Amino acid sequence: MQERLQHLFRSRRWEQFIIGLIVVNAIFLGLETSDAVMRNIGGLLLAFDTAILAVFVIEIVGRIYAFRGAFFRDPWSIFDFTVVGIALLPATGPLTVLRALRILRVLRLISVIPSLRRVIGGLIAALPGMGSIIALLAITFYIFAVMATKLFGDTFPQWFGDMGASIYTLFQVMTLESWSMGIVRPVMEVHPYAWLFFVPFILSTTYAVLNLFIGVIVSAMQGEHEASIDAEHEKRHNENTEILAEVKALRAELAEMRAAKAEG
Amino acid sequence: MQERLQHLFRSRRWEQFIIGLIVVNAIFLGLETSDAVMRNIGGLLLAFDTAILAVFVIEIVGRIYAFRGAFFRDPWSIFDFTVVGIALLPATGPLTVLRALRILRVLRLISVIPSLRRVIGGLIAALPGMGSIIALLAITFYIFAVMATKLFGDTFPQWFGDMGASIYTLFQVMTLESWSMGIVRPVMEVHPYAWLFFVPFILSTTYAVLNLFIGVIVSAMQGEHEASIDAEHEKRHNENTEILAEVKALRAELAEMRAAKAEG
Amino acid sequence: MQERLQHLFRSRRWEQFIIGLIVVNAIFLGLETSDAVMRNIGGLLLAFDTAILAVFVIEIVGRIYAFRGAFFRDPWSIFDFTVVGIALLPATGPLTVLRALRILRVLRLISVIPSLRRVIGGLIAALPGMGSIIALLAITFYIFAVMATKLFGDTFPQWFGDMGASIYTLFQVMTLESWSMGIVRPVMEVHPYAWLFFVPFILSTTYAVLNLFIGVIVSAMQGEHEASIDAEHEKRHNENTEILAEVKALRAELAEMRAAKAEG
Amino acid sequence: MQERLQHLFRSRRWEQFIIGLIVVNAIFLGLETSDAVMRNIGGLLLAFDTAILAVFVIEIVGRIYAFRGAFFRDPWSIFDFTVVGIALLPATGPLTVLRALRILRVLRLISVIPSLRRVIGGLIAALPGMGSIIALLAITFYIFAVMATKLFGDTFPQWFGDMGASIYTLFQVMTLESWSMGIVRPVMEVHPYAWLFFVPFILSTTYAVLNLFIGVIVSAMQGEHEASIDAEHEKRHNENTEILAEVKALRAELAEMRAAKAEG
Repeated sequence: MQERLQHLFRSRRWEQFIIGLIVVNAIFLGLETSDAVMRNIGGLLLAFDTAILAVFVIEIVGRIYAFRGAFFRDPWSIFDFTVVGIALLPATGPLTVLRALRILRVLRLISVIPSLRRVIGGLIAALPGMGSIIALLAITFYIFAVMATKLFGDTFPQWFGDMGASIYTLFQVMTLESWSMGIVRPVMEVHPYAWLFFVPFILSTTYAVLNLFIGVIVSAMQGEHEASIDAEHEKRHNENTEILAEVKALRAELAEMRAAKAEG
Repeated sequence: MQERLQHLFRSRRWEQFIIGLIVVNAIFLGLETSDAVMRNIGGLLLAFDTAILAVFVIEIVGRIYAFRGAFFRDPWSIFDFTVVGIALLPATGPLTVLRALRILRVLRLISVIPSLRRVIGGLIAALPGMGSIIALLAITFYIFAVMATKLFGDTFPQWFGDMGASIYTLFQVMTLESWSMGIVRPVMEVHPYAWLFFVPFILSTTYAVLNLFIGVIVSAMQGEHEASIDAEHEKRHNENTEILAEVKALRAELAEMRAAKAEG
Repeated sequence: MQERLQHLFRSRRWEQFIIGLIVVNAIFLGLETSDAVMRNIGGLLLAFDTAILAVFVIEIVGRIYAFRGAFFRDPWSIFDFTVVGIALLPATGPLTVLRALRILRVLRLISVIPSLRRVIGGLIAALPGMGSIIALLAITFYIFAVMATKLFGDTFPQWFGDMGASIYTLFQVMTLESWSMGIVRPVMEVHPYAWLFFVPFILSTTYAVLNLFIGVIVSAMQGEHEASIDAEHEKRHNENTEILAEVKALRAELAEMRAAKAEG
Repeated sequence: MQERLQHLFRSRRWEQFIIGLIVVNAIFLGLETSDAVMRNIGGLLLAFDTAILAVFVIEIVGRIYAFRGAFFRDPWSIFDFTVVGIALLPATGPLTVLRALRILRVLRLISVIPSLRRVIGGLIAALPGMGSIIALLAITFYIFAVMATKLFGDTFPQWFGDMGASIYTLFQVMTLESWSMGIVRPVMEVHPYAWLFFVPFILSTTYAVLNLFIGVIVSAMQGEHEASIDAEHEKRHNENTEILAEVKALRAELAEMRAAKAEG
């Protein structure tokens, strides 16, 4: 029974069935955002939504039964477990925001479709290599946020009133959105030397982000590139090995000839 | 007759004639946007426009006659057929917008000039390799649009009133245009934790777009690069093959010598 | 005399003298922008400016005398001739704008310092390879500008009133500056489907600009990279040639041995 | 004593102790930005801050004693000396801004953690290669700033009133922030041809910045890439050397054989 379930969950047809279900569910969740649609067929949509959710819950339960401990060692299974689980939480009172998170179920498309899973895997695999630069960016943000809160917190509380506000505003400045007309020019009317704070911040964070990008590009390049180069080097190595073996065999034969002659 | 037409349409002089006609047509269509010009020589311009269009229609008809089925199997021919055909549609009543599309005829420059055709071919060829990331971006947009409509649709109907408005606003946010001062700061005045929605959206979509770019760069690099590397590896392979052949011939001769001596 | 002048103009000390003169001149031209400075030592600055200009004019005349026709065949000499010449044009009446162009003289720094000259040479050398994509961008701009003028010219004359205004506005949209909040949202209030015009424009032009960048990156990479790779391949080729020569010599000797034995 | 101190300062445990101290200090300096926290435990925080600072000062003094002259030859030691020294300067009167700079102490994280130190080293090492393009950018900025001050200084003194204002505004334009709606469109209402100034400025500076990026990418690529390629070429070279040695030995033996036979 357990093995047959494992076989079922790994079958291509089950994958396609789940993909179809997610797509239908995504469309229904999209339609639910329209008031006009909800007024007419809202009940029907909600019923379908509950039915599809039931299938997902049964599938997860089935997979836990089928794979046991292996289920919880597979990050993608835990991912599925989480996004389906969100829909089972009560979404009332202060938690009504959870109702909006139900659409996260559509993320299961990523765990079901192998090519998407691979892309996400690649994106995540590139992150550790960027660890140092991300740490540097975090330190830079923290230092500049503390300074901004101390320097401009009293005069511009809406932007730099506390650490949270400062970090958000600095993030906005880093994306270059309205940094000058919206933030720095007004600040400079009170603190004329504020540009000494913001221009170095922009230069250093954009340079760091650039290097983040370059790190990703370089490692992507190497991964793809080296595979093909390595194959060629492997071939050259094999050819050289073959030549060397031939030459050595030749030398051995010659040695044999000399030995034979010496004996003769 | 058919063959002579084929020969004509493939000749360099015909290509140059068509290029000249398109450029002249483009200038006329540009001049038509000026009210002052239209008041003075508007009739003349429209007459010329009709004449040039007639030449294009005759050319398309001639090419269909000359190449028959092959015409409709060549994507660039269908492209020409479409952009010329737009001008023949009635542009009255609710379709006056089609009048503005007549300028699309200038796109024939791309199908006529080989180097432009090659560039467009390259741009399109790069798209399939980006399929997975484009799919991920589409899923991300859909999920965030459903959430935004549910969370902010009631309070900010002009930006998140329905799925269409939300997708447009999120596209604007992804391009970083006025994302903070124009959209997120006003939203945060009502929903203080809206940054928990928008900052992850910005980080994930810009990271995805970055990886889209990297994919294009890496594949462009490989295409260009490997050609030259492969040629070198080919040469090394040939040299190795020659050396091996020499060594093997040497060994064969030695074997012959020994055989001769053994007999002798 | 002519040869001694050539020698002088090519000497390192003359180069340093001219660099010093340009830097001093640049500082003076910068100081001239300050009203306070001009009120105090304006006469002195203008006198110095005229003196330095005189030296530049004499240098150019001297170089024309020294190098004759070769002067006008060197693009950098013509560059020097032009930026110095601008200062000699009358800057009165409608041409007062030319007075502001006098600072272009500072560009001579580029023609005098070899490393800057090389960088500019590299930047310009990368342009022809981008010819096709620049042509595509120009066609795209022209087509969209004609369409925008026809579609939105009547309702938004300040942005799309004529071809010039449309091209400028589309350039702004391509740089993503205020494209949505400033331009497209107001336009969409009158033409609800305007996003069908602007979103494809943004996607196609940014994709084209991206490919422009990639072209530059790829060619920069190849130039630098191949040099080092080629050197290695050259070494491998030489090693292989040496091995092959040895093996052939060996075979020749063996053939000689057999011939000797056959005779013996 | 001196050697034992050197040993201590280089030990891994001391490194971890300092990292811990910096992190605690950073958190305290962050908490100091909150008025509510300061009202409750402000005295405590400041006492802790002073205590940690004392440890840092003692550490610096100890390292100077331990390493003597070598301390001042290590740029990272001077870095530590500076960021700790800032906190000892009097922060009263016109220097209260120095109080905000105390957070720079957190930058010691970079000098303590080797991987961050390496990244910063890499970022700085990439700068000299960009010297020429940075010089070009500086010249471009200076020239355009002088021209902008002369052309638009009288009509838009808030943006182009003096060299400083012009350089700041041009930096804003280069980052594309509000360049059109905020700056150039208002300027064009007075000077209709202002786009002839700003569009070339945008195109040339963004092209220069792009080439700055490409320079970083290319050099990053080469560093990482060549290491792996060189290793492969080294292996091929060794294989070829081995083959050649074998063939030469073979030839020597054959020569010996012939000599022996000639003697025999």
